[in-house]
Amino acid sequence: MTGKLFVVGLGPGAEELQTVQAARALEEADDLVGYAPYVARVSERPHQTRHISDNREELARARHALQLAAHGRTVAVVSSGDAGVFAMASAVFEAIESGDAGWRALDVEVVPGISALFAAAARLGAPLGNDFCALSLSDNLKPWERVLDRLLTAARAGFVIALYNAISRARPWQLNAAFAALREVLPAETPVVFARAVSRADEQIVIVDLARAGSQAADMRTLVLIGTISTRRIERSDGGTWLYTPRSVEKSP
Amino acid sequence: MTGKLFVVGLGPGAEELQTVQAARALEEADDLVGYAPYVARVSERPHQTRHISDNREELARARHALQLAAHGRTVAVVSSGDAGVFAMASAVFEAIESGDAGWRALDVEVVPGISALFAAAARLGAPLGNDFCALSLSDNLKPWERVLDRLLTAARAGFVIALYNAISRARPWQLNAAFAALREVLPAETPVVFARAVSRADEQIVIVDLARAGSQAADMRTLVLIGTISTRRIERSDGGTWLYTPRSVEKSP
Repeated sequence: MTGKLFVVGLGPGAEELQTVQAARALEEADDLVGYAPYVARVSERPHQTRHISDNREELARARHALQLAAHGRTVAVVSSGDAGVFAMASAVFEAIESGDAGWRALDVEVVPGISALFAAAARLGAPLGNDFCALSLSDNLKPWERVLDRLLTAARAGFVIALYNAISRARPWQLNAAFAALREVLPAETPVVFARAVSRADEQIVIVDLARAGSQAADMRTLVLIGTISTRRIERSDGGTWLYTPRSVEKSP
Repeated sequence: MTGKLFVVGLGPGAEELQTVQAARALEEADDLVGYAPYVARVSERPHQTRHISDNREELARARHALQLAAHGRTVAVVSSGDAGVFAMASAVFEAIESGDAGWRALDVEVVPGISALFAAAARLGAPLGNDFCALSLSDNLKPWERVLDRLLTAARAGFVIALYNAISRARPWQLNAAFAALREVLPAETPVVFARAVSRADEQIVIVDLARAGSQAADMRTLVLIGTISTRRIERSDGGTWLYTPRSVEKSP
């Protein structure tokens, strides 16, 4: 008897940004598996067991969930945002590939979610209106030179850039190094957005020029968005600002 | 008296991949504005007026919606997937910037959705497990040389690539030209996915090697995903295949 493994994207925070499919998966699960703050976002249900683990234990967490499913349980591994975007889905399949052959027979269903990237973009207007990329600034799993090279290549090529894992206690200097390098290839007035805890009660969104962007504006819950040479600001009557990137051809940098 | 403009991402197709926020916006709207197949996905409601327009009329459609909202109506412009990803949000803000100054006082709410990209990735496993980009292959709004250069730059830099607007009747040759160019910079066995109508009744997902990828596998409803040198296939016990891109460092191309 084998069970089922859901890998669920909970969305950015607000319950109304969750999909119906995600709600159904959470309802069906016997076991919830995840990083504590994400598991805490799911309403408690009788008969549902919660398995909480620390950050940066993705592979062990994935194996644990697979073992539970292999024993016949219906398991939901939960991630913030979309489970496939710098979240648990990749760790689950890495665990399957290197794990028990029987895991390849499991019913695994990845449930997509609203990523922080799209939630932040929606709040701002339409900053992703043209080609864009998402890039992890973490050098835990790849060398820093590789991270920086990829970032600058994307900036030069004219992609709007979303930086995941922009900063943490263990990686305090990388974000400022990234801004310094970007200032060599993008105009000083390129908009940079710090979008923190989007759709949650403590949401905070700040837009600054690249010239003034500094890592003090970011924490572990902040997504950083970097516009292109074409990204435009529209001043709203209420004093706010919309940001959008036109669909049509960009000027050459 | 001014109304409200929602710019709503309907998700990829299945109703259970819609967010609660999107459902609420559709419920509140006096007017629905959009390309016919997307408007058709919304249940009819008494007292709700439907304004249907052809493809490639985005700017005119956006202006019409803004005029309705400026006259006090609650309007929902609908897009498939996420409204901010190669969809209506950018056209709306372009129309605001170049339009009536009063439009800057309008209450505009962009409602994010599950993009085709994330829905397709979830079906496959975790192909976006590392840095990725989304790129429109259309040369309607930018020169083809620019499109191709950006595509090859992203491939060389090791991004997983999602191609939007991969093919249409008016743009029949670009996708094969893109595959031919990619074969010069990526290994022949790089996985290429044709994900058509994801989450709908006629969903079709095909994985081939880049060496064998051809545009006959795509139509206007197909998202094309191109893996990296690190993207891995896992053979499932039932004969299917999962695709995932590891989170850790890639081999150099």
